Amino acid sequence: MKQLRLSLVGFGVVGQGFAELLATKHDLLRSHYDFEVKLVGVANSQGFIYREEGLDIPTLLELGKRRAALTQHPGVQSWKNALDGVRATRGDVLVEVTGTNLRDAEPAISHIRAALTQNMHVITANKGPGALAAIDLMHLAHEHHVQLRMEATVMAGTPVLSTIREGLAGARVRSIRGILNGTTNYILSAMAGGRNYSDVLAEAQAQGYAETDPTADVEGYDAVAKALILSALVFGHTVTIDQVVREGITQVTKEQIHKANHENKRIKLLTSLHVVADLGECPLDVRVEPQALPLSDPLARVDGVMNAITFQTDTLSEVTVIGPGAGSVQTAQGLLADLIAIAKS
Amino acid sequence: MKQLRLSLVGFGVVGQGFAELLATKHDLLRSHYDFEVKLVGVANSQGFIYREEGLDIPTLLELGKRRAALTQHPGVQSWKNALDGVRATRGDVLVEVTGTNLRDAEPAISHIRAALTQNMHVITANKGPGALAAIDLMHLAHEHHVQLRMEATVMAGTPVLSTIREGLAGARVRSIRGILNGTTNYILSAMAGGRNYSDVLAEAQAQGYAETDPTADVEGYDAVAKALILSALVFGHTVTIDQVVREGITQVTKEQIHKANHENKRIKLLTSLHVVADLGECPLDVRVEPQALPLSDPLARVDGVMNAITFQTDTLSEVTVIGPGAGSVQTAQGLLADLIAIAKS
Repeated sequence: MKQLRLSLVGFGVVGQGFAELLATKHDLLRSHYDFEVKLVGVANSQGFIYREEGLDIPTLLELGKRRAALTQHPGVQSWKNALDGVRATRGDVLVEVTGTNLRDAEPAISHIRAALTQNMHVITANKGPGALAAIDLMHLAHEHHVQLRMEATVMAGTPVLSTIREGLAGARVRSIRGILNGTTNYILSAMAGGRNYSDVLAEAQAQGYAETDPTADVEGYDAVAKALILSALVFGHTVTIDQVVREGITQVTKEQIHKANHENKRIKLLTSLHVVADLGECPLDVRVEPQALPLSDPLARVDGVMNAITFQTDTLSEVTVIGPGAGSVQTAQGLLADLIAIAKS
Repeated sequence: MKQLRLSLVGFGVVGQGFAELLATKHDLLRSHYDFEVKLVGVANSQGFIYREEGLDIPTLLELGKRRAALTQHPGVQSWKNALDGVRATRGDVLVEVTGTNLRDAEPAISHIRAALTQNMHVITANKGPGALAAIDLMHLAHEHHVQLRMEATVMAGTPVLSTIREGLAGARVRSIRGILNGTTNYILSAMAGGRNYSDVLAEAQAQGYAETDPTADVEGYDAVAKALILSALVFGHTVTIDQVVREGITQVTKEQIHKANHENKRIKLLTSLHVVADLGECPLDVRVEPQALPLSDPLARVDGVMNAITFQTDTLSEVTVIGPGAGSVQTAQGLLADLIAIAKS
């Protein structure tokens, strides 16, 4: 049976969720997909631990839960930071799930470059590297004959990138429209029901759907990051953040919501990518902005924290995928699907 | 560059649509997927033609359009029936797109067995073999180290089987609910707008959405065939036609439609598969029947000839895919995606 040696960089909510899913799915991976995973390295902000014979997932989860040092795991080597640990050790797959940074994508992008350069496949849920450098990183992976996969960066484990690249293989995507941020959709859905922006935001923060600093969500930056990933991976174009028309939801008024309801429409924070020319500096029109969608549009009915995406292609008029766009298990599912794809190849 | 030698059995609307798409996508397959297709064999009800050096697609399409004998293509060998032709020749891939027969799946199942036995990959849009013998045929493919793929049998080219098996790899599907027949959805959507069953059926027949004998659609047999394919490929269980609870739409009354509208519901011909036990004779509850769905259900809003399917899994609460479920180009897209998957492997 094939064995994949895996290092996991990032051991917060997503990293711990993935480790837990690996344990849950251990038997299934053996019986159904004919491989097993040996988790050999794990890093959090305190450093990187490594054990050639494999780490014990229950022990790691227990350490993670009480925020204890990972070096308390028996029999490990350790490094003060993840990058040193990745460089000093070897494995088949790096799973990168540190927090997203859209300024320079660090430290994730360094972890990913290091792993690809030493011929490790990389799976990531971190939107920074894909948003800022997807095409470069894909080339680097290609040079080293390994895969770089990032299903979990767009709508968590709901299949989006694999749907376009594998499910719709051979089709030419002409445009993409989506609701790619759950926090803003939760707020707008509640506002459509008559509530106030500030009340709903406070509630979303209390329920953990929104961050204490909600800027990345409510100003549209999270959706922009996903649009940049789609630009690169679906259309093959590097689009920069300042080439995206971006407007968040903080200026959406009660009057606009009311008017939309009255016209049988719903205001959604819509992410859209359209091909505008075959050649040229930026042949894509990329936007994140509130739009009033008629109820006949499948996206108009997607409420709460659910996400959705619609592709228009040359062969299939319109295909829509609706599903969860966040959450620990949901994100781990996206990482798992990528891992299985790598094991099969 | 890899070259795939392909034989196409069935040269009606779907077969011609696929041949046309192969010609349209010729350059894309070379540039983007690094392979090319040489169409070496084609069969219709009059027989099978073969040319070692490859057949000319425009010539074939021209013969097909004026219903002329395929043997008029220059320089071909020919056989009186497709099965003899498949057995006498060789290739890498058989594309089987003859008409669906749910009684014994012939002649498609014989074509498929013959091809698999001589180590050819098989792609099919024909629902008969998958509905009656998917698991046996998958075993046969496995024994011969080739693939049997049938994306186009469920919702044409809208990615359903690949979404479950690849996009959601590692997830355990607990239930499936879908609108898997476009004709009945067209009729029910129009009835929800106040029209009569018989008027809408006549209109659907005039527009080519319904057959002259609409039994397979309106009595639910087409949806049952898709349910049997999903039973086998998603849950690994062979379910027989008489184990499916089936009710068509011919008994749906104006009063029922009116009552549903009044309750903010829509009546849909729902196909559902639920796991009912881990063991037992038939551990799946499989149904095709009209159901009144609340408008909060994404399936309730899918109107006209569009199809949709919702999966519930252990890791992702609910994922829905909406897209076209029929049509020549749409079906050809499903065959093409399968072909690309085979070329990659």
